[in-house]
Amino acid sequence: MPKNALYAQSGGVTPVINASAFGVISAARRHRDQIGTVFAARNGILGALDEVLIDTAQLTDEMMAQLKYTPGGAFGSCRHKLRHGAELKRLFEVFETYDIGYFFYNGGGDSADTCLKVAEFAQYHGIDLTAVHVPKTIDNDLPLTDCSPGFGSVAKYVATSAREAGLDTASMAASSTRVFILEVMGRHAGWIAASAGLASTDAYSAPHLLLTPEVPFEAGRFLRAVDETIARAGYCVVVAAEGIRDTHGVYLAESGVVDAFGHAQLGGVAPILAGLVKQHLNQKCHWAVADYLQRSARHLASATDLAHAVAVGETAVAYALAGIRSVMPAIVREDNEPYRWRIEPVPLADVANHEKPLPLDFLTSDGFHLSPRGREYFAPLIQGEAPPPFRDGMPDYPQWQFVVNDRKLPSFDPTRG
Amino acid sequence: MPKNALYAQSGGVTPVINASAFGVISAARRHRDQIGTVFAARNGILGALDEVLIDTAQLTDEMMAQLKYTPGGAFGSCRHKLRHGAELKRLFEVFETYDIGYFFYNGGGDSADTCLKVAEFAQYHGIDLTAVHVPKTIDNDLPLTDCSPGFGSVAKYVATSAREAGLDTASMAASSTRVFILEVMGRHAGWIAASAGLASTDAYSAPHLLLTPEVPFEAGRFLRAVDETIARAGYCVVVAAEGIRDTHGVYLAESGVVDAFGHAQLGGVAPILAGLVKQHLNQKCHWAVADYLQRSARHLASATDLAHAVAVGETAVAYALAGIRSVMPAIVREDNEPYRWRIEPVPLADVANHEKPLPLDFLTSDGFHLSPRGREYFAPLIQGEAPPPFRDGMPDYPQWQFVVNDRKLPSFDPTRG
Repeated sequence: MPKNALYAQSGGVTPVINASAFGVISAARRHRDQIGTVFAARNGILGALDEVLIDTAQLTDEMMAQLKYTPGGAFGSCRHKLRHGAELKRLFEVFETYDIGYFFYNGGGDSADTCLKVAEFAQYHGIDLTAVHVPKTIDNDLPLTDCSPGFGSVAKYVATSAREAGLDTASMAASSTRVFILEVMGRHAGWIAASAGLASTDAYSAPHLLLTPEVPFEAGRFLRAVDETIARAGYCVVVAAEGIRDTHGVYLAESGVVDAFGHAQLGGVAPILAGLVKQHLNQKCHWAVADYLQRSARHLASATDLAHAVAVGETAVAYALAGIRSVMPAIVREDNEPYRWRIEPVPLADVANHEKPLPLDFLTSDGFHLSPRGREYFAPLIQGEAPPPFRDGMPDYPQWQFVVNDRKLPSFDPTRG
Repeated sequence: MPKNALYAQSGGVTPVINASAFGVISAARRHRDQIGTVFAARNGILGALDEVLIDTAQLTDEMMAQLKYTPGGAFGSCRHKLRHGAELKRLFEVFETYDIGYFFYNGGGDSADTCLKVAEFAQYHGIDLTAVHVPKTIDNDLPLTDCSPGFGSVAKYVATSAREAGLDTASMAASSTRVFILEVMGRHAGWIAASAGLASTDAYSAPHLLLTPEVPFEAGRFLRAVDETIARAGYCVVVAAEGIRDTHGVYLAESGVVDAFGHAQLGGVAPILAGLVKQHLNQKCHWAVADYLQRSARHLASATDLAHAVAVGETAVAYALAGIRSVMPAIVREDNEPYRWRIEPVPLADVANHEKPLPLDFLTSDGFHLSPRGREYFAPLIQGEAPPPFRDGMPDYPQWQFVVNDRKLPSFDPTRG
């Protein structure tokens, strides 16, 4: 009897994380002689611990196809860092009970750490388990891979949104709003904010200013840049990462300066920036916070990103079957024009707990714009459209209703007590 | 020599306002014997007053096609209510100078008032000018028309976004965020917020709660509903109109209660609602503010809305040529299944300065959900996709660079002095 596999989704979801699930499950199905049942854990590692498992054999061909175009996490995700001791021990009890020989963990940096812990535990105890990490994060901060599946679609969304809102702002600028601020995700790294710069094709088109955590925020310099942009282009579109910090490294959303403009715990740098613009430049300012919209907008996913997501899932299975353990399938860029890429394994130990910052030379020297090098990097990642089917005017996403297995072990819920 | 025409865009733009411009210009081109040059005013009525006019003969067939898929206002819009006296007098000087016999004004309720003033002035002074209002507003609050061009696309965007963000939230709810709040436009009417309810197909799917200005906001009732929704569905997605008010009619974004959570002048009810949820229910809450994104998202426009927008533009010209003055082409719904509609003229005097509120029976009795009647109304308006062409991974919108005419009159800028 071949060993079974366990697949789990972890951390913040992406528009294409389910495409990686498709990759894993479909590849395993092509090797039924080597991989038996593929279980998916309900709500990530929490379901693995609490033995809430979905036998993916219940996924029909139609449901498999739906995985490729449905955002969110089909099996549920979680934010939970696996603890040594009771939790890790329990996880292996579940593995043993279900004869799991392959563990595919689909997540970002924290999840790579979990995956590594699992791999090391197996090795130390001589347990026959192959753990492979399947990369995913909209933050694009995983090391050793050219990019992270999920990011390209978010980049496409924010660049498109900045371009569209820019056309709107330009129309209104003669007598009303001249400044529009779009807040995007990126607590630690400015990958997403920077990628929005793709929409700007000259000194006049939006977005005009990019604010990233890598470049310390100085209110005076920012306001001068807004003012100059309005003088030149007639209006100004700003894309700001949520995690921008002042010169002391203090998050703008948490700095004392901003108390009058917004309640820090609730986040939101856009209203703070809008307050500065209104107060100091006396310009009418509109602002948007994309939040979950940017990372669930599967209707605007990048076909390139989708291809990456499927490929890392499929390749994870290939590695596992070839006995390549404790790795992550990484995306290697071979060429930019035309864009070519391949997948290579990188050691999990080098991936876990490292965050890849946005290279400063992806920005111009003033930090406000995308450099040619940055544009060269980002451009291929948003290429191609892969819209979901529409029904009744909306994307026709399924409402997943999976049957979970009957429990064989006592309950174990790490979120309780 | 046939008389010339002047077309101008007014107020907040929509994803399809340029499609109405296409309708007007292309219909006029089919009647060159009756309409000479079609001028477009730069930045709405401001350009008409200041004689900054674009001869639309410079629009090639390719540019005409671009009008149908480019958001924002191609010729620029403005927020300016035409004043009697010097302004109206000046406008007619421009009309006389350019031999304008047809005035097509593309806007919402305020603009209908402007259009009416122009029509009345012409009639009173015996001037041969036909004024026709071309309806447009994402707010959907124009009276006497079944819906307003622009609204259907926004409805499609907010319903799609609520559905997508709902899948995201559902994935995270086991261990992290359980509440997501999407703030949409609607200062006075809840049309947009209510339309997001189309995404919810049962008691479990997002959005779970709709907050409209028509239903007084009570914090306790809202929090109970969020709590009940989490208990039932595991998570809760709220779509809130920016203009929700408490039982005293005070805007939530401006009420004393919320000072601690957000700076009122900057707007944003989403962070205020998120603060309530966090404080009283101790639930992690994410929030987004769609702002301009919702009304510029041409990439997700409704084909039905687009057809309406073109038709009102074309029909406005047909009315003008038939001598039907001081009217607005209104959309009349003939049937729901299949959806059928026609255009009919309605008197401008009955349109100007009236706002159509969301009928309360479009919501369920608790005010939180779309009623079957509401669903029946909204559903046809979001049908069909009409995406723009993409290039390099993004919508390929033109950068308009129009040549404006040489000035024949002294300058006149109503925004100065």
